[in-house]
Amino acid sequence: MVAEFDLIRRYFKTLVDAEGFGLGLQDDCAQIPNQALSGDMVLTVDTLIEGVHFLPDDPPETLARKALRVNLSDLASKGAKPLGCLLALSLPKPQPKDEAWLQAFADGLGQDLKQYKLQLLGGDTTSGPGPLSLSVTVLGLLPSRQALGPAMLRSNGRDGQALCVTGPIGLGFLGLKVLSEDLELPSPLFERAVARYRLPEPRLAEGVLLRESGAVGACMDISDGLLADSRHMADASGLRVEIDLAKVPLASPLLASESLGPLAQISGGDDYELLFSCDESQAERLIERLGRGAIIGRLTKGQGLALLGPNRELLRAPHEGYVHGND
Amino acid sequence: MVAEFDLIRRYFKTLVDAEGFGLGLQDDCAQIPNQALSGDMVLTVDTLIEGVHFLPDDPPETLARKALRVNLSDLASKGAKPLGCLLALSLPKPQPKDEAWLQAFADGLGQDLKQYKLQLLGGDTTSGPGPLSLSVTVLGLLPSRQALGPAMLRSNGRDGQALCVTGPIGLGFLGLKVLSEDLELPSPLFERAVARYRLPEPRLAEGVLLRESGAVGACMDISDGLLADSRHMADASGLRVEIDLAKVPLASPLLASESLGPLAQISGGDDYELLFSCDESQAERLIERLGRGAIIGRLTKGQGLALLGPNRELLRAPHEGYVHGND
Repeated sequence: MVAEFDLIRRYFKTLVDAEGFGLGLQDDCAQIPNQALSGDMVLTVDTLIEGVHFLPDDPPETLARKALRVNLSDLASKGAKPLGCLLALSLPKPQPKDEAWLQAFADGLGQDLKQYKLQLLGGDTTSGPGPLSLSVTVLGLLPSRQALGPAMLRSNGRDGQALCVTGPIGLGFLGLKVLSEDLELPSPLFERAVARYRLPEPRLAEGVLLRESGAVGACMDISDGLLADSRHMADASGLRVEIDLAKVPLASPLLASESLGPLAQISGGDDYELLFSCDESQAERLIERLGRGAIIGRLTKGQGLALLGPNRELLRAPHEGYVHGND
Repeated sequence: MVAEFDLIRRYFKTLVDAEGFGLGLQDDCAQIPNQALSGDMVLTVDTLIEGVHFLPDDPPETLARKALRVNLSDLASKGAKPLGCLLALSLPKPQPKDEAWLQAFADGLGQDLKQYKLQLLGGDTTSGPGPLSLSVTVLGLLPSRQALGPAMLRSNGRDGQALCVTGPIGLGFLGLKVLSEDLELPSPLFERAVARYRLPEPRLAEGVLLRESGAVGACMDISDGLLADSRHMADASGLRVEIDLAKVPLASPLLASESLGPLAQISGGDDYELLFSCDESQAERLIERLGRGAIIGRLTKGQGLALLGPNRELLRAPHEGYVHGND
């Protein structure tokens, strides 16, 4: 293992501009000049632990990018524009990562910093007895709350609003299943599912469009599964949520097995599509403008989650969401 | 183990104001309104891992506070005012923490949030196979860089400047030693050392005074040990650093053993005093205004670190700093 100073110098310093907010990673702090703080700041942090949130043999280059993207997905749900990130990387001392691993990790990180116009502000590199773990804090900006009314909080759902998603549900979950349980899927679904599990697509442009529409109530990204996160939105908004199973755009509607079928796909997680509520009269127009996604249900008075069949009959969901290792 | 939602609701939500930047911890994101972003933003992140950066039997209430304070110490070194923090808490699944532990942890956190007027902006709670680990991101503000010239970066040292510290060196290290190796120290030094190891005192007011003086070149907090961090400052500034051992205000100058004596104390770490360089003509006046600390050496042309005896003879340092588990 190289010491922290060497590691930062060798792999991460090349990712920052010496004149950037990260101060060339030479200091313990980053500094963002006031003129760059135009608008409200949005912040979020997520931790990924090997064996819990990603698989031990996930490639290092996609791992770095996934850690950024799950946070960017939270920014997307507020319609925010990415600004910068901090990375706390804990390396496993018992099975040290070699230089090729670290280089690939840094390359992946650099690729997504560029793609999302995100500055690396700083970080902390440690090593310990635990598995590899990454905590990424991401900062973004959005026009001041005063100017645009309440942000798209998950608690902002209103009675009678339509419930919508920005894209297919279950693809990331299928990727996790085939990778971790050695299951088969037909090509090219197999490759698409694996790619999506390893590299979520944060819906940043969609989040901005939704925010600017002014028609959206609650918005959040789907990480724990469509059922669990719909329930979270309903609970936070003090409402009941109804989902019409037939309207959910499934990653693979024809898979029939219990472990990979429709109910598994809407319970699975790792989607990172946006889930939002909006005025019913505007829902179709919004989906049209997004160019993707679907209206899948509604928020109503009451509480809990109702999963409905084609004749509005109540279906039982086997479980309400995949909870990563019960975290 | 309680699930993440319950855990946040039960222990952390009471620490935030529903109208605060953390949005009542109800959302995946925090939001800081633009009018609160008055000045440049300073950001830092530090990870503490059980068994590496703290001891398994350190009390949970001081642990939460230590995790905040090591980050506040970084803010102090830039003369910044604390604004908010995000906490990524990874709990050990194999040895789950009980409710009393979690409550004490949250109580300690709440105590320091209040003491330092810091808002809890958000966080992520996970559990995994590794030991307890905390990554804390802290945000602060300081007057815009344009208005006050370059900030007190560790690379801002200048040839001929005096090297100073804001307080005694070695106290935290002695605390770690007596706790981890069952060593004896006379009372009340024993109690003071243990208290300092568990609860660093970030020098926030001192940092502001130093920044406002306009006389300071480089500034950083001492976490890896006086020798190692002096060397870091010298390297970043492209200079050589000389330290007069007799001038260093040691926690316990009379301890003579190799493992606890002066060289051990200046190599030990966990001080969280500030180390700074300033114009020689102003050094005495600055120390007087601080009401604490000492002038301990100087920055000169050249490179490396020279530890000098009473007649400016070169002493050998046994090692240049305690590196936490080679992290």
